[in-house]
Amino acid sequence: MSFCAMAAPVAFIQGASRGLGLAFCKHILKNKTPAVVIATCRNPDGAAELRELSAQHVGRVTLLGLDVNREEDIRAASEVVKKDFKRLDLLVNSSALLHPSGKGETSLRDVSAQGIISTLTTNTVGPLVMAKYFAPLLQKGGGGFGHQPEDEAKQHSGIIVNITAKVGSIGDNGLGGWYSYRMSKAALNMATRNLSIELGRGRPKVLCVSLHPGTLDTDLSRPYHKNVPKDKLFSTEHSVNYLMSIIDSLNISRTGKAYNWDGSELPW
Amino acid sequence: MSFCAMAAPVAFIQGASRGLGLAFCKHILKNKTPAVVIATCRNPDGAAELRELSAQHVGRVTLLGLDVNREEDIRAASEVVKKDFKRLDLLVNSSALLHPSGKGETSLRDVSAQGIISTLTTNTVGPLVMAKYFAPLLQKGGGGFGHQPEDEAKQHSGIIVNITAKVGSIGDNGLGGWYSYRMSKAALNMATRNLSIELGRGRPKVLCVSLHPGTLDTDLSRPYHKNVPKDKLFSTEHSVNYLMSIIDSLNISRTGKAYNWDGSELPW
Ligand SMILES: NC(=O)c1ccc[n+]([C@@H]2O[C@H](COP(=O)([O-])OP(=O)(O)OC[C@H]3O[C@@H](n4cnc5c(N)ncnc54)[C@H](OP(=O)(O)O)[C@@H]3O)[C@@H](O)[C@H]2O)c1
Ligand SMILES: NC(=O)c1ccc[n+]([C@@H]2O[C@H](COP(=O)([O-])OP(=O)(O)OC[C@H]3O[C@@H](n4cnc5c(N)ncnc54)[C@H](OP(=O)(O)O)[C@@H]3O)[C@@H](O)[C@H]2O)c1
Repeated sequence: MSFCAMAAPVAFIQGASRGLGLAFCKHILKNKTPAVVIATCRNPDGAAELRELSAQHVGRVTLLGLDVNREEDIRAASEVVKKDFKRLDLLVNSSALLHPSGKGETSLRDVSAQGIISTLTTNTVGPLVMAKYFAPLLQKGGGGFGHQPEDEAKQHSGIIVNITAKVGSIGDNGLGGWYSYRMSKAALNMATRNLSIELGRGRPKVLCVSLHPGTLDTDLSRPYHKNVPKDKLFSTEHSVNYLMSIIDSLNISRTGKAYNWDGSELPW
Repeated sequence: MSFCAMAAPVAFIQGASRGLGLAFCKHILKNKTPAVVIATCRNPDGAAELRELSAQHVGRVTLLGLDVNREEDIRAASEVVKKDFKRLDLLVNSSALLHPSGKGETSLRDVSAQGIISTLTTNTVGPLVMAKYFAPLLQKGGGGFGHQPEDEAKQHSGIIVNITAKVGSIGDNGLGGWYSYRMSKAALNMATRNLSIELGRGRPKVLCVSLHPGTLDTDLSRPYHKNVPKDKLFSTEHSVNYLMSIIDSLNISRTGKAYNWDGSELPW
């Protein structure tokens, strides 16, 4: 099997209504023609920018409702993709929250069981359950993203990108705070590692990496933007340019790791 | 303030009905006289060995019911300790499950949102919420466990031990599988790191470490014992001997890390 001669690449962007997910959709539609995009969020009817994008790129965008906290939504979306596309080349898990309150915990006093569980459910459980339902489709993928080595035995059929955060690195953690969010991304990084092992073993190979997009000018981190030096606060467009160049370079030798936006490896 | 001349050390063992937690209680009662033990589990009436221990060591054991999944149980237990002891020197979070099914996931097929959430709730959220309610008491502790340096500014008042697992190390993960359990322990290690920062900053200092007990001859790992070479399967008594010698050696310079039973540092 060679992955080069196949049909238009299929990308699935989960958490696409706003922020980084929306920028991924725009980037792929603009720069990866003829790739098609399946874009999901909780309420596609209310996602004006996504609907506009879909109108601009007729036939290249599929909009689906998917709450990543609901396993039945995920299963249903996978059935649609199976029926309409039969395969997947790229899955980006972008949705996340900092904390249900909108602010990360400054100290232990702010910690609550319910706050941690909500954050873990969306940021960690969601992406892994996505991987469960979409891995079979990624195994049927055409390898339309990433860099295919000449050796066919090392080629991949699909890629899973879990959007992580630098603050999810345990080794890099010198400041503390943001308990729920940090824990959710550390656990997500473990999921990435596990997925890379299970899906990278045989053939077809599916790669899995965690990517840190930098600090973004989006809703998620809005309460903290005033503390970020201007040149460290990225637009989502700028961040996706970086992340896409990492994705373009991925092959089996780079699976199972966490990368910063500049391509450097993040410590666990 | 010097921590040496104070009253009997107070240890709180959470998840004490069986396995490693029970062995911690036995060890402290036998080897750390006059230390007292607060031992908790979900159903203390049914915990025959704990009740026996309590009868053998009159006045040294307090038995409380505590389901680590219930924040109100944790708060109530902290009120009892506050009233009866006014402080705490050591908190060991030992309770955990491998997966609600009793078996770790062999592959993605076995993953379910509900299974991961249950595992994270008990193994990760529980210990952090414990830390939330007991940190103030540990800050009033007498530093009865660990090694106190001569420099008073570096002395600690209390220690939190989160029992982790080697399979919770992302960097050490070469095999995959056991998604829920691995993710729960990776997130717990992040909690350890965060706690060590928040509670180690000022004074009084509370230390926090993750400890891996080795593979134990207990219910949690029973389905897998047949695959473990005999000399690698530890009795809980044997494991606690090792873990207590690590705890005895702890001081502020060793906080915020994960240690193997032999004292070596585990990668994140
Ligand atoms: N912002 C930063 O500074 C920063 C830094 C490092 C890492 N990151 C990571 O980058 C990724 C993207 O974040 P962002 O800044 O783009 O966030 P954002 O602007 O707040 O967007 C969050 C996205 O997640 C979706 N979402 C939230 N909960 C969901 C659920 N239960 N089901 C489905 N979708 C859900 C939202 O869709 P709805 O329309 O349905 O609400 C929205 O599309 C996240 O993984 C984040 O952790 C961000
Ligand atoms: N066994 C191993 O090979 C191994 C290896 C590495 C690390 N560890 C770690 O070592 C620690 C101890 O494990 P173990 O082998 O001693 O396990 P175990 O024999 O299965 O005992 C589990 C303990 O956790 C308690 N527990 C479970 N759910 C609870 C809840 N919701 N609330 C309160 N207590 C709860 C149980 O109490 P109840 O009586 O209430 O059920 C019991 O006391 C765990 O953190 C485990 O992850 C074990």
